[in-house]
Amino acid sequence: MTGPFSFDVQHTDGHARAGVFHTPHGPVETPQFMPVGTLASVKALDPDDLHRLGATMILANAYHLRLRPGDDLVRTMGGLHRFMQWDGPILTDSGGFQVFSLEGLRTIEEEGVEFRSHLDGSLQQFTPESVMRIERNLGADVIMQFDHVVPGQSPHDLAQVAMERSIRWLVRCRTEFDRLQAEDPLAPTPVQALFPIVQGGIHADLRRASAQAIRNTGDWVGYGIGGLSVGEAKPDMYAMLDVVNEVLPTDRPRYLMGVGFPEDLVEGVARGVDLFDCVAPTRMGRTGAFFTTTGRRNIRNAQWRTDSAPLDASCTCVACARFSRAYIRHLFVAEEILALRLLSLHNVHFLVALMRDARAAVLAGTFEGWSHDWLARYHSRSTPS
Amino acid sequence: MTGPFSFDVQHTDGHARAGVFHTPHGPVETPQFMPVGTLASVKALDPDDLHRLGATMILANAYHLRLRPGDDLVRTMGGLHRFMQWDGPILTDSGGFQVFSLEGLRTIEEEGVEFRSHLDGSLQQFTPESVMRIERNLGADVIMQFDHVVPGQSPHDLAQVAMERSIRWLVRCRTEFDRLQAEDPLAPTPVQALFPIVQGGIHADLRRASAQAIRNTGDWVGYGIGGLSVGEAKPDMYAMLDVVNEVLPTDRPRYLMGVGFPEDLVEGVARGVDLFDCVAPTRMGRTGAFFTTTGRRNIRNAQWRTDSAPLDASCTCVACARFSRAYIRHLFVAEEILALRLLSLHNVHFLVALMRDARAAVLAGTFEGWSHDWLARYHSRSTPS
Repeated sequence: MTGPFSFDVQHTDGHARAGVFHTPHGPVETPQFMPVGTLASVKALDPDDLHRLGATMILANAYHLRLRPGDDLVRTMGGLHRFMQWDGPILTDSGGFQVFSLEGLRTIEEEGVEFRSHLDGSLQQFTPESVMRIERNLGADVIMQFDHVVPGQSPHDLAQVAMERSIRWLVRCRTEFDRLQAEDPLAPTPVQALFPIVQGGIHADLRRASAQAIRNTGDWVGYGIGGLSVGEAKPDMYAMLDVVNEVLPTDRPRYLMGVGFPEDLVEGVARGVDLFDCVAPTRMGRTGAFFTTTGRRNIRNAQWRTDSAPLDASCTCVACARFSRAYIRHLFVAEEILALRLLSLHNVHFLVALMRDARAAVLAGTFEGWSHDWLARYHSRSTPS
Repeated sequence: MTGPFSFDVQHTDGHARAGVFHTPHGPVETPQFMPVGTLASVKALDPDDLHRLGATMILANAYHLRLRPGDDLVRTMGGLHRFMQWDGPILTDSGGFQVFSLEGLRTIEEEGVEFRSHLDGSLQQFTPESVMRIERNLGADVIMQFDHVVPGQSPHDLAQVAMERSIRWLVRCRTEFDRLQAEDPLAPTPVQALFPIVQGGIHADLRRASAQAIRNTGDWVGYGIGGLSVGEAKPDMYAMLDVVNEVLPTDRPRYLMGVGFPEDLVEGVARGVDLFDCVAPTRMGRTGAFFTTTGRRNIRNAQWRTDSAPLDASCTCVACARFSRAYIRHLFVAEEILALRLLSLHNVHFLVALMRDARAAVLAGTFEGWSHDWLARYHSRSTPS
């Protein structure tokens, strides 16, 4: 790689890797979990919260920001980093997933997708080219290609059509991406990295073909793995990671999109994944759910009513350092905003810290034993609460 | 005064005073604005936020905490300070205002008030004695008497009945308060201060009689002034403060309950008030309104769409140090929780800083000129937005 992007694999342990991904806004130690700030805000958290809990790279979403406040406005305000006051690396998803989720509101053609805004019903068109321009305006370090996403259980023929179209769209994305890098040097982040996205549903041959076809288009700074954790069974997802792991280059970061829960992160690292993102830790917080090392719990449960222990006894996050389950339960039941912030803080911290621990295990050459023990403890509790 | 409570008046300037109110959980420089944490949480803010913006004393509410999570639970958890992790002074309102706001849901008798919970309709009874026990369990430094509150425009006869009952209830409160201090030494805050509340609506003779009757009951650590800012005209409120100021002892702190907006605070200090509280700065934040030195604004206004300035150019709060109006407007329009936190932070900081400035002016002997200039600037803008 040239320019501000590079990836150093420091150590491998089985298929698991520990590395450093360098970006224009600083390095990212991998494996890493990236909190999601869909609308240029990681829900309920501010940049200081994110720094304190150890996040180094965060996500935003091109579809949502295009509609509100508009990518042109974000650019006017100096780009995403300046707008949201996050000085670390940012990745924007292209919005492919969101656009293709608008069942009944959209028309898919080879040129692109026409759809109606989920906010005001206005007619919008996304093409590979327009999405590159949107992501240029937003100014993330890493931008994702516009791809054709299908549901996790899609049959072979539909998954193949979408996968092959995603490859053709990738080529168009790169043409427009290269043009913009050359002709629009005053964009908020002049040198960005475009990541392709491996598709193919839960069909091993399609996943293999997609990864191979992407490699045939040339060298990339990093590789996205999309269309997983969208309704398929977990063993199917893990099998697809095994397939993709065999084909993608070992000296580039792999980003498993929209995944996920703690067990998925550990299983993903074991299959060569370096980067993860998911709305789960903040969305779960809004339902009262929180992670512990012995499984998921819910703060609404009456058993915490007078519990003076923190959410998770072994956690070092700000919420656990200070507040009892009893207090956070009271806040949640009373619909106090602080409850959402504390639960989100804890859940995001949990995943960031989990990947930090995984990284340490890879560096120490103990990942297999560590991950086995971690998963056994996480799944140890038989009665959910 | 004896024990952990004392009040030092350091300087006076006209009727305005600068002092220090000492409590078991530390000193409070006056005049001071106290943020309101009705349910043991200042909405959207955490204790670190409050310390950073300069708050030293906060409020909670006995009525709300009695219903949820229960004063017994708070006591089990070590009292309010420990439960909510606020190590500074706390004051609890008795809930008189809340109980008497339950029009149609309550029966008032000399013994006390029977009412139905606004949450689940369950039958509850508050008497002067039961409220003292609730506030003992909560463990604030300063606790307010249970009083009979009437609407701001109440006629003379109704205001007189309520005022006279409040005096009788004060005597009952003190008997129970003294008993609890003697017989319940293991309460979360063993030595508390009970404040009486001056009532009398907008009738000067009743206000005078109330303040005098309270003085006749003995000496008090501090004095509450209640039943104002509840619908009456501002000149009426200011006139009542002038009346009360003449009667209350000058060497004790005066707390004007539920007030208020910036102009009310400045006018209150000019009339000898030392302590204020109001839900306005956090409640306003939830509607998008924010204070500036040239008047109130609303962040929803389209004029801020691409405004890179902070909420208030002269403000030093965390929100203003970092974020643009354009970003906060985006967050508010997109219904991001962070918008509420930033607006609340700013508004609470604004009132806390305003009282800090007023204090400095009193100490410098420049309060009259300072307050005149401040009010003129605050009211200078003719077109609201």
